[in-house]
Amino acid sequence: MTGGQRGPDLGVCYYPEQWPEEKWAEDAARMVVLGLTWVRVAEFAWALIEPEPGRFDWGWLDRAVETLGNAGLKVIMSTPTAAPPKWLVDLYPEILPVGADGHVRKFGARRHYCFSSPVYRREAARIATALAERYGRNPHVHAWQIDNEYGDHDTVHSYSPAAEAAFRDWLRARHGTVEALNEAWGTAFWSMLYTDFAQVQLPNQLVEEPSPTHLVDYLRFSSDQVVSFNRMQAEILRRLSPGRPITHNFMNQNTDFDHHRLGQDIDVASWDVYPLGNLIHGRLPEALKQRHLRTGDPDQPGFNHDLYRGVGRGRVWVMEQQPGPVNWAAQNVAPMDGMVRLWSWLAFAHGCEMVSYFRWRQAPFAQEQFHTGLLLPDSTPDQAFHEVAQVAEEMRAMPEMGPRGRAEVALVLDYASRWALAALPQGRNFNPSHHALDFYAALRRHGVDLDIIGPETDLTGYRLVVAPDLVIVPEGFVQRLAASGAKAVFGPRSGSKTADMHIPDGLPGGPLRDLIDVRVTRVESLPDWQVETAAMGNRRVTLRRWRETVETGDGVLARFEGGYREGAPAVVGNDRARYLAGLPDAEGLGLVLTDALDWAGVAHLPDLGDLRLARRGGVTFAFNFGPEAVQLAAPEGARFVLGGPVLDPAGVAAWV
Amino acid sequence: MTGGQRGPDLGVCYYPEQWPEEKWAEDAARMVVLGLTWVRVAEFAWALIEPEPGRFDWGWLDRAVETLGNAGLKVIMSTPTAAPPKWLVDLYPEILPVGADGHVRKFGARRHYCFSSPVYRREAARIATALAERYGRNPHVHAWQIDNEYGDHDTVHSYSPAAEAAFRDWLRARHGTVEALNEAWGTAFWSMLYTDFAQVQLPNQLVEEPSPTHLVDYLRFSSDQVVSFNRMQAEILRRLSPGRPITHNFMNQNTDFDHHRLGQDIDVASWDVYPLGNLIHGRLPEALKQRHLRTGDPDQPGFNHDLYRGVGRGRVWVMEQQPGPVNWAAQNVAPMDGMVRLWSWLAFAHGCEMVSYFRWRQAPFAQEQFHTGLLLPDSTPDQAFHEVAQVAEEMRAMPEMGPRGRAEVALVLDYASRWALAALPQGRNFNPSHHALDFYAALRRHGVDLDIIGPETDLTGYRLVVAPDLVIVPEGFVQRLAASGAKAVFGPRSGSKTADMHIPDGLPGGPLRDLIDVRVTRVESLPDWQVETAAMGNRRVTLRRWRETVETGDGVLARFEGGYREGAPAVVGNDRARYLAGLPDAEGLGLVLTDALDWAGVAHLPDLGDLRLARRGGVTFAFNFGPEAVQLAAPEGARFVLGGPVLDPAGVAAWV
Amino acid sequence: MTGGQRGPDLGVCYYPEQWPEEKWAEDAARMVVLGLTWVRVAEFAWALIEPEPGRFDWGWLDRAVETLGNAGLKVIMSTPTAAPPKWLVDLYPEILPVGADGHVRKFGARRHYCFSSPVYRREAARIATALAERYGRNPHVHAWQIDNEYGDHDTVHSYSPAAEAAFRDWLRARHGTVEALNEAWGTAFWSMLYTDFAQVQLPNQLVEEPSPTHLVDYLRFSSDQVVSFNRMQAEILRRLSPGRPITHNFMNQNTDFDHHRLGQDIDVASWDVYPLGNLIHGRLPEALKQRHLRTGDPDQPGFNHDLYRGVGRGRVWVMEQQPGPVNWAAQNVAPMDGMVRLWSWLAFAHGCEMVSYFRWRQAPFAQEQFHTGLLLPDSTPDQAFHEVAQVAEEMRAMPEMGPRGRAEVALVLDYASRWALAALPQGRNFNPSHHALDFYAALRRHGVDLDIIGPETDLTGYRLVVAPDLVIVPEGFVQRLAASGAKAVFGPRSGSKTADMHIPDGLPGGPLRDLIDVRVTRVESLPDWQVETAAMGNRRVTLRRWRETVETGDGVLARFEGGYREGAPAVVGNDRARYLAGLPDAEGLGLVLTDALDWAGVAHLPDLGDLRLARRGGVTFAFNFGPEAVQLAAPEGARFVLGGPVLDPAGVAAWV
Ligand SMILES: [Zn+2]
Ligand SMILES: [Zn+2]
Ligand SMILES: [Zn+2]
Repeated sequence: MTGGQRGPDLGVCYYPEQWPEEKWAEDAARMVVLGLTWVRVAEFAWALIEPEPGRFDWGWLDRAVETLGNAGLKVIMSTPTAAPPKWLVDLYPEILPVGADGHVRKFGARRHYCFSSPVYRREAARIATALAERYGRNPHVHAWQIDNEYGDHDTVHSYSPAAEAAFRDWLRARHGTVEALNEAWGTAFWSMLYTDFAQVQLPNQLVEEPSPTHLVDYLRFSSDQVVSFNRMQAEILRRLSPGRPITHNFMNQNTDFDHHRLGQDIDVASWDVYPLGNLIHGRLPEALKQRHLRTGDPDQPGFNHDLYRGVGRGRVWVMEQQPGPVNWAAQNVAPMDGMVRLWSWLAFAHGCEMVSYFRWRQAPFAQEQFHTGLLLPDSTPDQAFHEVAQVAEEMRAMPEMGPRGRAEVALVLDYASRWALAALPQGRNFNPSHHALDFYAALRRHGVDLDIIGPETDLTGYRLVVAPDLVIVPEGFVQRLAASGAKAVFGPRSGSKTADMHIPDGLPGGPLRDLIDVRVTRVESLPDWQVETAAMGNRRVTLRRWRETVETGDGVLARFEGGYREGAPAVVGNDRARYLAGLPDAEGLGLVLTDALDWAGVAHLPDLGDLRLARRGGVTFAFNFGPEAVQLAAPEGARFVLGGPVLDPAGVAAWV
Repeated sequence: MTGGQRGPDLGVCYYPEQWPEEKWAEDAARMVVLGLTWVRVAEFAWALIEPEPGRFDWGWLDRAVETLGNAGLKVIMSTPTAAPPKWLVDLYPEILPVGADGHVRKFGARRHYCFSSPVYRREAARIATALAERYGRNPHVHAWQIDNEYGDHDTVHSYSPAAEAAFRDWLRARHGTVEALNEAWGTAFWSMLYTDFAQVQLPNQLVEEPSPTHLVDYLRFSSDQVVSFNRMQAEILRRLSPGRPITHNFMNQNTDFDHHRLGQDIDVASWDVYPLGNLIHGRLPEALKQRHLRTGDPDQPGFNHDLYRGVGRGRVWVMEQQPGPVNWAAQNVAPMDGMVRLWSWLAFAHGCEMVSYFRWRQAPFAQEQFHTGLLLPDSTPDQAFHEVAQVAEEMRAMPEMGPRGRAEVALVLDYASRWALAALPQGRNFNPSHHALDFYAALRRHGVDLDIIGPETDLTGYRLVVAPDLVIVPEGFVQRLAASGAKAVFGPRSGSKTADMHIPDGLPGGPLRDLIDVRVTRVESLPDWQVETAAMGNRRVTLRRWRETVETGDGVLARFEGGYREGAPAVVGNDRARYLAGLPDAEGLGLVLTDALDWAGVAHLPDLGDLRLARRGGVTFAFNFGPEAVQLAAPEGARFVLGGPVLDPAGVAAWV
Repeated sequence: MTGGQRGPDLGVCYYPEQWPEEKWAEDAARMVVLGLTWVRVAEFAWALIEPEPGRFDWGWLDRAVETLGNAGLKVIMSTPTAAPPKWLVDLYPEILPVGADGHVRKFGARRHYCFSSPVYRREAARIATALAERYGRNPHVHAWQIDNEYGDHDTVHSYSPAAEAAFRDWLRARHGTVEALNEAWGTAFWSMLYTDFAQVQLPNQLVEEPSPTHLVDYLRFSSDQVVSFNRMQAEILRRLSPGRPITHNFMNQNTDFDHHRLGQDIDVASWDVYPLGNLIHGRLPEALKQRHLRTGDPDQPGFNHDLYRGVGRGRVWVMEQQPGPVNWAAQNVAPMDGMVRLWSWLAFAHGCEMVSYFRWRQAPFAQEQFHTGLLLPDSTPDQAFHEVAQVAEEMRAMPEMGPRGRAEVALVLDYASRWALAALPQGRNFNPSHHALDFYAALRRHGVDLDIIGPETDLTGYRLVVAPDLVIVPEGFVQRLAASGAKAVFGPRSGSKTADMHIPDGLPGGPLRDLIDVRVTRVESLPDWQVETAAMGNRRVTLRRWRETVETGDGVLARFEGGYREGAPAVVGNDRARYLAGLPDAEGLGLVLTDALDWAGVAHLPDLGDLRLARRGGVTFAFNFGPEAVQLAAPEGARFVLGGPVLDPAGVAAWV
């Protein structure tokens, strides 16, 4: 790992502290036989490492690392800061986070800390240092994970006194003077003027919504707190454990902090793949949820692989792969047999270097006892165990895949724009995470590979850049886009706010007007039951939830139909960029975006239905997310290196 | 305004403090050219007028008034008490309101004050006095607005220590002795007896609901606090600014305080007209919401015009007319082009003297940046600008309309009865605001003009009085009704509670029995999906959500059908009054109320569908709230003074 | 009552403190004429008995008891601890309960006390002692009720400092050492280790869910607090009022405390019968709610009669029978005329000794003024009065019914298992109270009489034992079941947790494996819209919300169909026991359970639809819960002792 070919590898999450020491060696041996090479440990082990203030009990963890390493496994060591011990909470109750309701969030589960607490930062540094000193040069420790799932349980946002103090400092640094803050927040509006930064409070429990700039600044501040907390630990690890890559395990399209910025401070991005719970809580209409109940949304895992590959600047792992039913969703369904294998190969196809399963063995106690593993609680193999064995065997037969490479199409996910939308959604049913996935899915259904990038990412080489919701266009973005030669498609609301969360001079469109002549004179959010339609040539595009009135001197590619402002532009554009004056639904996006692919000269296929294709190096993978077998249209002369031309449900094939 | 003909006039809400001073003169000039004569200012300007305790900065406002006045505009000056400055909150944190959840509601938006805070009352009086001393005799200041939208953001009800103390005083004044309170509240019921007023607490955060009399007393107290807070300011303005009418801008059918009582202390009622958000949050079934998505509920604006005309004892303004999409509803749709004109003429047709648009120019910053204005943020005209110009031109061609005059039909809205229903709804889907609008709409759909009155209003001259929910019949009401000779229709639950919120002796009906023989022996609230039917002659009336069993010696006009108590009376009556033993739905109300119109000798038309007619003086107006053009059935010899016999969607016509 | 034949009797709840003393004698006389023999008093009378600390006002209650007793009524005296007076709350604010939101729940309604408050326990003992000393040997006092409706308004669970202190003591007693607690709770899981019991907090307001064992221990603790609070009062009454049976009035299938354990400390169980509100809030799909809108769920009252008959070890009363519309449900509908009679006879048929109506006269004031009674507020008879008169008359003609006797089928309701499900529901739509009623209803629809028993109940004599959700199988249960010779049917999740809330060694099924070979390797919770199907012979069983994968060496009686794990066992079994690997819906349960009846040799009838039959002694009762008349299939030679062979809606018949 620390040199040469990177993966594909398999791994597992393991908790020696949860099992009798007698089992460790047998567990490690079975992991190796199964074909695993990586094992993550210790991310919730603080109280076991340091059972009382300053007294460390390293013995058990030393022996665990030794046992695992001697078996031939590479250990991913974790800093255990996601769950401070009770004695620490009792010593320093001020480290607990405070909810938006003003109540302290108590000890008893995990993530019970406020990112702004200086005491907690000191303590987190202390335990990270102790761990890094102990294991930083341990030959079995090949990588580090910092903390665990930042943002889980809505813990990025705390309303503690520490957060308030830190927020005031942050505002001072951002705005310089209170006059500048007043200007930015528009405090003249409702007599909200401040004369001192010390007057500013956190934006919870107000009579009515705060200034959106107040709110957006709080969201930015909260993101920065996560980034700096993480960087503090990364610096410790880098100093004390040179040469070992550092990661953090992200979650499904979480937007509570700027992952691109945090990604700068780690070596590999990793994320936790739980497609079935995300289906239940996700974007699809009920009929499609039913169709994909045990396969998950076909595009949710790929979206995140592509996103975190960008966050990791090319390097991405799966740290936790769902192995079976889990415990945390509204309902917890089983994956169809074969899906664990499918998801594993899907990860590799999207460029992941490693897939690690959560977890080795199902715990028969505590909160996650309904979360399955590779083994049942009685150590017999569960379904996933057999599927992982199959993957391991198939990996041995797979030719060198090579790197994933740059895609022709990039989709922009900008966290700052998401906060802008969160601060002023304007429609209660406006869900940009769902919209981004809709745009992504429309392209993926036509066989297109994508990169998901941040607005600062180098754009060179892309043929088409799709920005579903680039509300705040960063300085220089338009210039870099123009220079890249890529065509661009912007979703509605793009360019609609300045960095201070104002409407731009000259109306929305704002900086985009250097690319495309679009001036948005009116916006509407629409109830779920309202359908707008537009004619695009002789095709009909249906749009929902958002509609704009735009003026343009450029071309009009589609026009609204029906009683309201009939003939108004629905899609406008020139030879460099297009702008959507509404939110097409899934089918509408298919029309609009395949038209854009043709325009940009990107090859695509007819609608693939439940099938998804992904290319990595010279290998093309196919995945069946549907309930029926599919006949593949592999090119003449294709040689199957995995499976064959008929793909059963949950089936995977690959050819070169 | 201060004499002679009153309106029709146009106006606008303007915030000089939100724009560079260089723009003021141009803005003022454009307002005048557009045809506006009134301009409201300063209702959120406290922190700009008094940037620190006791230091006043009058200069900018002096110059703004001067600029506007010199351009020919009449200024409506506002007391800025809806948004106290941060320094005031920091000096006196006890002025903040406390929510029903027991948490202080923080600074950062608006309406962050508790009506019961003696400190805030002192400070409000101080700033109102300072403003009135400064501008009370300013020749450009022609009217005053006190505060802004009492009740917005649920701010009438506070659970602060100040509110608790004031509530105890209020109870002492109302009940005299704690024994009387115990009797009224029925504290013998659950061992709830008090021995001292000081033991009584506010009715939030109880284990289970409080005594309904406890709750109703709290709602009455809260209303009284608003009334006395307003009166305190009105007295200051009357003293220091003689001859200028005083107004307050009310909201859509808010029932958190007694508008009729507050109306006694002002000279003109005004209200804020936002039909589209009210459609989304309103009473109509989904199919009708869809039909009227961009025109709004055809009856919501008229209802409030008629209501506040009564509250203003004949004088009513529109202070804020929606000019396009706004920002606060669940979804914010655009009005169909033409609707701003339609709403303007509708207001005049319902007797409004003035229509003022909110706002001159859309703000590109702060909370309401999605709230449109007459101008876009870049000062170019938005759709409403053009429609206002058209209205201004049409006004010049309109003959003198004369006063609106007394209607033949009055609908009673009694705030005390609404609190009674809020305290004991008995069905979670029982929404009296919706029901009142349903009754109103059934009559308006048949071309009937109405007055909406309070229970103390003089009844002389009405042919028909409709009381959808006069739960508590005030002393003397029945006598005045009998004396007036008007026929009356009472909705279910009328007469069902005494002033102390008890069931009347002799059962519900109570004081109504002096008019009509009705004894309610049973009431039922019904789930939304349950439909009851009654036969009224050979017509079928469907009823929902509420049904009663009544005994009567008077006539039975309709009888229930179906399995439960078949044949029981559904509508009963004599030659003076009728009583409904259930809640007919929209169609059922059409049958029941047109029958009552015939009985009362009030002329009416067949169902008008999307069309609404309104008469003012000699002029009859017609408004099309539907998606299709309508052919008007204007009388022979009618002369059109606006539009013609074919009414397009959003169309307006008028004839004499 | 205190000897000889027990019932059937009628009674009523009466509140002399709510009415002028002049009315008492007349009320008492009318009760006797109506045929009532029991009258419950004083359960909310503390503040009237002890208006200030230590000063007792016994006079009114002495006279009330005297008046009622002299009229010939037997008084059920109540301890008034459900509603402590305001002066007590003001003296000791710490007695108030604290909600899960961390806020004190205020005085002003009822049940405003924390079971863990030592001060409140002392005060409750003091008032109970005073009452028992006063009335313990009063010749008119024939029984006692302790407190009122434990658990109403979610008051079993308090998060006060007193509860926290008591919880720590409870944990010390249960676990002995903190190491044992750590083991049981699995605190190694997320670094949740404790080093001292004093560190443990109540499981509210955490960042994420607590350990399920933490939660289950809190639920057990809370139950124990209710049991010991009740026992404390029972001991006082037993000592000071010998020979009078003690009861408590339970609620519809409340599972917040262990009713079987509390039942050990009382002599008769009683419960409060409100079928219509329970229909609205209950398990049935909308179409059946509509069908039974005014008759209620046909099985909800019977379920509770059978349950509380077991809790009372054979003795059960109805303490509060709904007499008409009530006040507390989302909607409050009227019972069809005849239903009060039907419910009364239903109670007797299910073995109740006494049916007492709530209440004598509708109160025209306070919280429950929409709760009807036998009399209207003006003392005229309401519908129920006439129906009770009919019941009284019919009772005189009814032959001796004899005891209800042991049923052939027992359904197990285990409170500890319910807490296990509450702590780890795994599906948000998993509602075990509904499921238990579904199982019960499927059997009742086929004419089967049941006992509802606890897991400690003697199983001798049953042919079939049905355990819908015996999650935690108590020690010895399996042995006693085997010894009894009864066949058993276990619902899914049975045997899935140990007493410490862990997955059992060898996987779920756990201790059941001594009866049946079942090893659950996978569980799934399913969204409401997902339907699974299984083939059982040539019949199709549909299942919802829960599905398991089981391994068995026993027989497979039904197998899943469809795309996921087709052919997997859905029902498995041997000659002693069957296990359901999913939750059949109503129809599916009919198939599965009638098949089990045949297997167990229990006679049953075809689906009875809206009809229900119940046997007591030699008498068979029939009840029509439907909207259409039903022709009864009474056996040849049956002699009707009530009604006849045609049963109108709400009709009752009985034959011998
Ligand atoms: Zn709170
Ligand atoms: Zn407003
Ligand atoms: Zn009750």
